[in-house]
Amino acid sequence: MPERAGLDSFFAPASVAVVGATPTEGKGGYGIIHNILDSYEGPVYPVNPGREEILGVKCYPSLRELKGKVELAIVFVPAAMVPEVLEDAVEAGVKAALVESGGFAEVGGEGKLLSDRCKEISDKSGLRIWGPNCTGLVNTDPFIFAPFMLLRKARERLKPGRLGIISQSGMLAAGFMMQYVISGFFTTSKACAIGNKLDVDEVEVLRYMAEDPKTEAVIAYLESIDDGRAFLEVAREMAGRKPLAVIKGGRYEESARAALSHTASLAGSDKVIDGALRQAGAIRLDDFHDLMNLGKAFSLHPGPFKLATEEANNIAIVTVTGGAGVATIDMARSSGMNIADLEEKTLESLTKVFPDWMPPGNPVDIWPAFEQHGTDTFVEVLRDVLADARVDGVILLPFADRTVEYFPFDKVGRELEKHGKPMVSWIFGDIRYFKLFEECWNEFGVPVYTDIRACVLAMDAYLRFSRAARSKRSGGPTG
Amino acid sequence: MPERAGLDSFFAPASVAVVGATPTEGKGGYGIIHNILDSYEGPVYPVNPGREEILGVKCYPSLRELKGKVELAIVFVPAAMVPEVLEDAVEAGVKAALVESGGFAEVGGEGKLLSDRCKEISDKSGLRIWGPNCTGLVNTDPFIFAPFMLLRKARERLKPGRLGIISQSGMLAAGFMMQYVISGFFTTSKACAIGNKLDVDEVEVLRYMAEDPKTEAVIAYLESIDDGRAFLEVAREMAGRKPLAVIKGGRYEESARAALSHTASLAGSDKVIDGALRQAGAIRLDDFHDLMNLGKAFSLHPGPFKLATEEANNIAIVTVTGGAGVATIDMARSSGMNIADLEEKTLESLTKVFPDWMPPGNPVDIWPAFEQHGTDTFVEVLRDVLADARVDGVILLPFADRTVEYFPFDKVGRELEKHGKPMVSWIFGDIRYFKLFEECWNEFGVPVYTDIRACVLAMDAYLRFSRAARSKRSGGPTG
Repeated sequence: MPERAGLDSFFAPASVAVVGATPTEGKGGYGIIHNILDSYEGPVYPVNPGREEILGVKCYPSLRELKGKVELAIVFVPAAMVPEVLEDAVEAGVKAALVESGGFAEVGGEGKLLSDRCKEISDKSGLRIWGPNCTGLVNTDPFIFAPFMLLRKARERLKPGRLGIISQSGMLAAGFMMQYVISGFFTTSKACAIGNKLDVDEVEVLRYMAEDPKTEAVIAYLESIDDGRAFLEVAREMAGRKPLAVIKGGRYEESARAALSHTASLAGSDKVIDGALRQAGAIRLDDFHDLMNLGKAFSLHPGPFKLATEEANNIAIVTVTGGAGVATIDMARSSGMNIADLEEKTLESLTKVFPDWMPPGNPVDIWPAFEQHGTDTFVEVLRDVLADARVDGVILLPFADRTVEYFPFDKVGRELEKHGKPMVSWIFGDIRYFKLFEECWNEFGVPVYTDIRACVLAMDAYLRFSRAARSKRSGGPTG
Repeated sequence: MPERAGLDSFFAPASVAVVGATPTEGKGGYGIIHNILDSYEGPVYPVNPGREEILGVKCYPSLRELKGKVELAIVFVPAAMVPEVLEDAVEAGVKAALVESGGFAEVGGEGKLLSDRCKEISDKSGLRIWGPNCTGLVNTDPFIFAPFMLLRKARERLKPGRLGIISQSGMLAAGFMMQYVISGFFTTSKACAIGNKLDVDEVEVLRYMAEDPKTEAVIAYLESIDDGRAFLEVAREMAGRKPLAVIKGGRYEESARAALSHTASLAGSDKVIDGALRQAGAIRLDDFHDLMNLGKAFSLHPGPFKLATEEANNIAIVTVTGGAGVATIDMARSSGMNIADLEEKTLESLTKVFPDWMPPGNPVDIWPAFEQHGTDTFVEVLRDVLADARVDGVILLPFADRTVEYFPFDKVGRELEKHGKPMVSWIFGDIRYFKLFEECWNEFGVPVYTDIRACVLAMDAYLRFSRAARSKRSGGPTG
């Protein structure tokens, strides 16, 4: 068996060649060479037999001219030319090839034959192949931005974070990047699209992220899991150590078929996979938006949190609106969480800030007290509620208006840090104050959402993961 | 029995008094008088015994001085003073009192006694009472903006629309206003918070909106439905005629109890209500965000749409990303929709724009064709798909980048209008282009969302309502 490199050769290569680099703007081969020159600090070698130089950098006719110089070759040439490029790569001692070109197994016929030839090259030589048919990968430390979609100033725009992102679908992963990462919805450690999985597959990437010290939580969108047993093993190993949330598409016959035509992979038996994910303590979702929302929660605070109660599933709701409190209860109970029965001493203390006519309870409807005492009410109420030994986590439902400017973030933040309990917040009202509110809370690791459903989802995930971590510490069952 | 006015006296009064008006900024009584003077075109009478004039308008010591002049009195004085104000109102011939003050049945004890006295006055005199304990109501034509929360330039900011909004929770309704209406998320015909329902209740308001020619669809957040039979009757009457989506809080014991303390109403037997809503063809939801998303869909196009097939439940998915297509299938199938089996002629026609290696199917993965032919691909593909006799509706999943500028909205829009089928769109990618994409589609009645779940929810609601309308026309069962 030839020696085979690990995924560091993709995520942290010592040098990079871009095969199919072109100075023609708008082409993918331009996007890649631009992105790499702009984002990556090691030596870069454009490869294109028709060019002397590209973007001011000397260009080589083939990888063969770069013998011993290249660790990672990023390949973006027509499918029919890829096998030859890979043979050149082997010849040049390249360790890893990120093949972003499409037109392989996913198109059937000739593409399938090309795919088989590439696989053969990889098996025989030990050359690692990522893809084909993928949009590439991103590492924020050390930095490399390898997708073919042009992104200016990637280093400035993609801030290092603790979240790992795995997507099987190229366009979708690109969408994740563009929409969520670039917009600052969350920060990321590593993000990648795995494509056709000719060699590197979802299990190897997940295992890599499970071991990566810079990745503290992982979200994944997968159309197929080929080796359920191996996937389960990694997921189990992560349980209670790093949160894992997964969309596994293809629940239905039609979607499984669509997944097959899209990335040439079988969707596997959905029920087996569902059970395996649950057993391993992973969170399975259906919606990208949910996945992004959990990604935000885990990127801000991966957990685990301190748990107050044995069941570790009891929440308090602090709200400025009774209606939102009622709706939150319905959603929290649907998700299996309990509404904490507050301690007598908490209720007594709340009585001091509540008006006479209003007995405190859970949900803690803070509005009348807030009207009387202003924003300090939040400090007093949250101090009491966070200190309550029957409360494992808090869902905060405030109103955004100019009083947000006076919100006592620091004081409440210190209480949060003191108790180590999770808090998530919905915000509604005047959207001009949302950004301020969110940024101030994010500093304390509190995710802020504009829908209650996302709050409930995040709190449930925080508590589940914290329970799994406690179980692991005590040697009990995970999940 | 005394004669009792209808709800026109609240939504379209000939004259308005504001009892508790004050020139002190920041107070609710300032908010109301400001809002009314700024938004309402009829005569306005501030009432406050301690003032000569407020905001330049002559002020009266009591409603009694305004005998015969006032149709609607908006009341914002301490609870203990409300019965006397109502007696003054009766004396002055006022037809309707909108009581925004809190401190009644929802606080128990003394408040309950005050509430009973108000009820007695209403019963005996015929004076209609809205509230108490509510944030008010809004009508966009004729315009009146009555909440106590100050909103500058309400007439300019709240555009008339076709959606009616009913909320039981005051703060929440205010939140709806602030966040969704003011931000332009949707336009509204009438919006209101019903509060403690001392006299006017959810059934009467819903019936009013069901009959209001300017309201073509209704979304409602209710914590309780007191007279299930009457509610069901109105909902049934609306089935197939005006879409109705409802959040009915209090599914669980804890939330039912919280609803009780919040608006002094019993949550009713949840299962009975659930069944009744379903029978009446109403859509029941749990999450505000979902309710807002359906509100947007119905405000843009209330339906009903033309239905192509007998089952009227078959969708086509046109996507630039296979992954999103797979996820959409999973969610659509979960909601009970079918993935249309496209006609042979549609597939043949698609073959012309698809590359050779890619056989067209549903989802219609448009990316490779788009890469070859540019934005015109959308026209060709959507023309074929909309014309397909097996397709009842289309979910469009495009990518936002600068090509949005060239998107053929008009051409596709004409096809949409020609076929009368519903289309909804998700958008992802570069958020700078979202607004443009959304505005251009909204002109054709196509709602645009940033999560697929919302698309699926809206399409499902469109098709359900269109089926109910077809049933009604053919005299069959509704729902």
